[in-house]
Amino acid sequence: MTAGNPLLSDRDVAFQLYEVHDAAALLRLPAFADHDRDTFDLFLANARSLARDVLYPAYRPMDEAAPSFTGGRIHVHPRMRSIWPRLCELGVITASRPLDVGGQQLPRTIASMAEAYLMAANLGAYCYAGLTAGAAHLIEAFGSDDLKDRYMRRMYAGEWTGTMALTEPQAGSSLGDIRTRAVLRDDGTYAIEGGKIFISGGDHDIADNIVHLTLARIDGAPAGIKGISLFAIPRLYPGEGGLVDNDVSTAGMIHKIGWRGLPSLVINFGERGGCRGELVGIPGHGLSYMFQMMNEARLMVGLNGVATAAVAYHESLAYARERRQGRAAGRRDPHGPAVPIIEHADVRRMLLRQKAIVEGGLSLLLATARLADVAHHGDDEDERRRSALLLDLLTPIAKSFAAERGYDSNALALQIHGGYGYSSEYLPEAWLRDQKLNSIHEGTTTIHGLDLLGRRALAPGALQALGREILQTCSQAQAAGVELADVVAMQEAAGAAVALIAELAGRHSADPERMLRHSHDVLDIFMTVTVAWQWLRQATAARRALSQGPSSPADNAFYLGKLQAAQYWLRTELPRVAPLVRLCRDEEDSYANTRPEWF
Amino acid sequence: MTAGNPLLSDRDVAFQLYEVHDAAALLRLPAFADHDRDTFDLFLANARSLARDVLYPAYRPMDEAAPSFTGGRIHVHPRMRSIWPRLCELGVITASRPLDVGGQQLPRTIASMAEAYLMAANLGAYCYAGLTAGAAHLIEAFGSDDLKDRYMRRMYAGEWTGTMALTEPQAGSSLGDIRTRAVLRDDGTYAIEGGKIFISGGDHDIADNIVHLTLARIDGAPAGIKGISLFAIPRLYPGEGGLVDNDVSTAGMIHKIGWRGLPSLVINFGERGGCRGELVGIPGHGLSYMFQMMNEARLMVGLNGVATAAVAYHESLAYARERRQGRAAGRRDPHGPAVPIIEHADVRRMLLRQKAIVEGGLSLLLATARLADVAHHGDDEDERRRSALLLDLLTPIAKSFAAERGYDSNALALQIHGGYGYSSEYLPEAWLRDQKLNSIHEGTTTIHGLDLLGRRALAPGALQALGREILQTCSQAQAAGVELADVVAMQEAAGAAVALIAELAGRHSADPERMLRHSHDVLDIFMTVTVAWQWLRQATAARRALSQGPSSPADNAFYLGKLQAAQYWLRTELPRVAPLVRLCRDEEDSYANTRPEWF
Repeated sequence: MTAGNPLLSDRDVAFQLYEVHDAAALLRLPAFADHDRDTFDLFLANARSLARDVLYPAYRPMDEAAPSFTGGRIHVHPRMRSIWPRLCELGVITASRPLDVGGQQLPRTIASMAEAYLMAANLGAYCYAGLTAGAAHLIEAFGSDDLKDRYMRRMYAGEWTGTMALTEPQAGSSLGDIRTRAVLRDDGTYAIEGGKIFISGGDHDIADNIVHLTLARIDGAPAGIKGISLFAIPRLYPGEGGLVDNDVSTAGMIHKIGWRGLPSLVINFGERGGCRGELVGIPGHGLSYMFQMMNEARLMVGLNGVATAAVAYHESLAYARERRQGRAAGRRDPHGPAVPIIEHADVRRMLLRQKAIVEGGLSLLLATARLADVAHHGDDEDERRRSALLLDLLTPIAKSFAAERGYDSNALALQIHGGYGYSSEYLPEAWLRDQKLNSIHEGTTTIHGLDLLGRRALAPGALQALGREILQTCSQAQAAGVELADVVAMQEAAGAAVALIAELAGRHSADPERMLRHSHDVLDIFMTVTVAWQWLRQATAARRALSQGPSSPADNAFYLGKLQAAQYWLRTELPRVAPLVRLCRDEEDSYANTRPEWF
Repeated sequence: MTAGNPLLSDRDVAFQLYEVHDAAALLRLPAFADHDRDTFDLFLANARSLARDVLYPAYRPMDEAAPSFTGGRIHVHPRMRSIWPRLCELGVITASRPLDVGGQQLPRTIASMAEAYLMAANLGAYCYAGLTAGAAHLIEAFGSDDLKDRYMRRMYAGEWTGTMALTEPQAGSSLGDIRTRAVLRDDGTYAIEGGKIFISGGDHDIADNIVHLTLARIDGAPAGIKGISLFAIPRLYPGEGGLVDNDVSTAGMIHKIGWRGLPSLVINFGERGGCRGELVGIPGHGLSYMFQMMNEARLMVGLNGVATAAVAYHESLAYARERRQGRAAGRRDPHGPAVPIIEHADVRRMLLRQKAIVEGGLSLLLATARLADVAHHGDDEDERRRSALLLDLLTPIAKSFAAERGYDSNALALQIHGGYGYSSEYLPEAWLRDQKLNSIHEGTTTIHGLDLLGRRALAPGALQALGREILQTCSQAQAAGVELADVVAMQEAAGAAVALIAELAGRHSADPERMLRHSHDVLDIFMTVTVAWQWLRQATAARRALSQGPSSPADNAFYLGKLQAAQYWLRTELPRVAPLVRLCRDEEDSYANTRPEWF
């Protein structure tokens, strides 16, 4: 563990915020009128310090000693008891919430960068805050004033924490099959009975109460997803005389292979018939409410995938600069000194690939954060609608890119450490374990492929909006002096990707199974293309800066590094798109036609 | 953990041995004259039983309780004390060694399949045998009769075990930099002083003695690889009066993230000035001796990569058949029953990809084993030479394919298990950890890329021999009725791969650094092409069998599955080759030109 690991590059965060994604322009929107670049940077600086000084040093101890489950309760790592108030004090739970609910009303663009530092430092520790924010936001968006008063405010203040309780053992990803029951009681609350699994932060000993935002089926509701409602179920019920036991119990702890600071639990409601839940919003709308939250959670997972790849990238970069081994190619004098392994071209390949994934992924996640800001707070309705459409389209892509390519990146960080990387004396293996969850939770990569091709890419105007954005970037890139061949490659790949969807949808409008056959490859195509787009944006900004004359040798090196990483992605990854498009158009049918008994 | 996990498919092993790789033809060679198909099958059956009944049930306990290091000694899992004699009794240490050293003189083709079952069942447990075999084989090949008598025979009998002691902390992969010293003593032995790291099985409590086959530098020897000699260094020295302490100590245990049944140690020789080593062969030849062993060890690693992917594939296949979730695409009736997840096309994609990697990799490893048999025991000198050349060429490819694509395959097995796969209650995460080492030990993937492009592919006649083999397969495939488009794709990809090497070598004969720039991509190209070749061979055999009318519905299903997996690889993976070839020919220079300070 390198004490000086920066988690993320500060220079890169500043570049992406202000030179690529024009965060300063957000200050012109009325919602952010109270802010200026200083308040943005102050929040980022505070988050960075907390991440580096408090969360990161606690990461290894929390990974080594997972929470314990004794006496029916979960006891988390003792360090969390001092970390939790610091996270609340930073205001990360409500950074982007409105002033009137106690938030700081910062753009998601800024808040998400702060979160990225905290995630890179200590994913498990941060996530108590992230989960609480998501759960409280559901109440803010859909709950009654009474629920906001009694639940949301305490959660935003960090007095209580929150969870999302969706998954049931028998249903898995198929949320329409959940069975947790809700029966209306005389007092207007619901008697809840059922069990949930994989509830992150479902119990702990760092705050007074836990509110589970839970999907359940009101007795008599229709089968399938239309019969599902959303409930707030507190561990301790806030009654007249204070908090009383609400028959919520921890039935087991999953032995996760990563995220070991955060317990993942089996939670039972109403084992003794005494569990009360409060309906959030309208009956039967549970899944649509939850999907709004899930879209935010997916971007949070994407960000955390990038952050987890980032911290490992920086660790392997430092290692490659320090570790000496072998001689430069062609210089085989055995008496000469060994060189740092960064001098070996293939080690630089592994580093540049990580850089391309980390900084390309960060840019894609920043793009989604900025779209969310404009979708919610833009001053033009068309722009708001267009931003929402693009955000919807990019969400499964950004989440899956960070999960899948982030995992590749984390594996390279381990590989660069050689035999040492294979030991738990070094941290890359821990980050590799952490990263693996991201292709599973908040929708598996399979689900996101189906969701992208079967729904989001078909939304009227969505692909056209993306196509226009990419073409605009191409024009700007050309004007800034980016090599024409790279600009043309970008245009062609984006055009092929957009045309592919239209072709598949046209061909198989009556046969969704056939239409969706290559959903995984379509997702891969869009991951590769959208990150290429982000690299072209970064290359454009770097070219501009270089043509104006960078202010220091370090700045010069920074921009040259950007151009190399952009080149890597555009020339090494983007060419993967054409054969994938052919595969989809040809409807290659090997797995589609393989019967279960043929394996 | 599925009790019925077959580890490898018996049907597939029989198919590959007798329908694809014609193991029966080996019986015509004088070296194997004492065998017949019954003795082959009996050995396989015994290995299979031991693997399933003894090694596999011990896998999880051994993964959960790694060896302990107390009182200066390593104590391995108690189950190893009963497993070790069973492995010796099976004769796996000497299965392919000659009768005159106590072996069974079986072809590697047969022995390696037996090893694959044992590795799939319990990698760590098997490897005590594999390491002992490798170390003893070094003495058999290069040691004096005296050394054979005093060391090799006891090792082959399983009374003592063996290790390979190469790596030193400061040198890593750069073996020319090792510093362990050897000084000739009056009695003809050498006083040894130095430290080694990552010594697998370097200490344990399952046999009486351990012999470390160690690279060291005789005082006064030249710097670099030419000054390195090979020594046998026993933990207890076999003197006149029996075994006496030989000043070999365990200085530390690496906390590996996998292979937890087998300790990886820091071993010090001669801390008290009392360590004696015995020279093996001629001074200064240590590295060339070791490379012969390492080539065998690399194929062992390849086989274990395939085996580790295989056991996980079978686990995820059983899970996908049992686990019910969701509805078939297009049938969204929420009242209908949930379907086994194998009904979902993307789950079948993940299974078929695993099958293609596992059975394609097994075929490639079997091809190398058969080449080794013919190279050593063939009755025609030209054929022996040609086989040795091909074996040399395929070794880094087969090892790296199993390590890299095997890791992808293991990740898919975890993914199919969803959230459960992310917990240590299920085994896929353990196999994923095990697999990760294979891209690091016995040469990192980087090293194998450099070795392939910089040396093996340039050996006169090597690529031509591979090209001829592939063309022959193409002719047979066409005759058997394999689709012409697939045969043509194979020919084109193989042709492009072979031509690429000639072009790079011609262009940059004076600039090895430039020539080797895309060594990683070249390795990827050859991995993809050679496994496509193996799938074409399997498709050919399956087509033949289907045209003759399979003997049962199960057989019919088996052959149809082979055709689907072959189609998957030839149409989904093989098209990756063309853009990779372009990348290499264009000499894409992003990472080559990135300076260390630009990251």
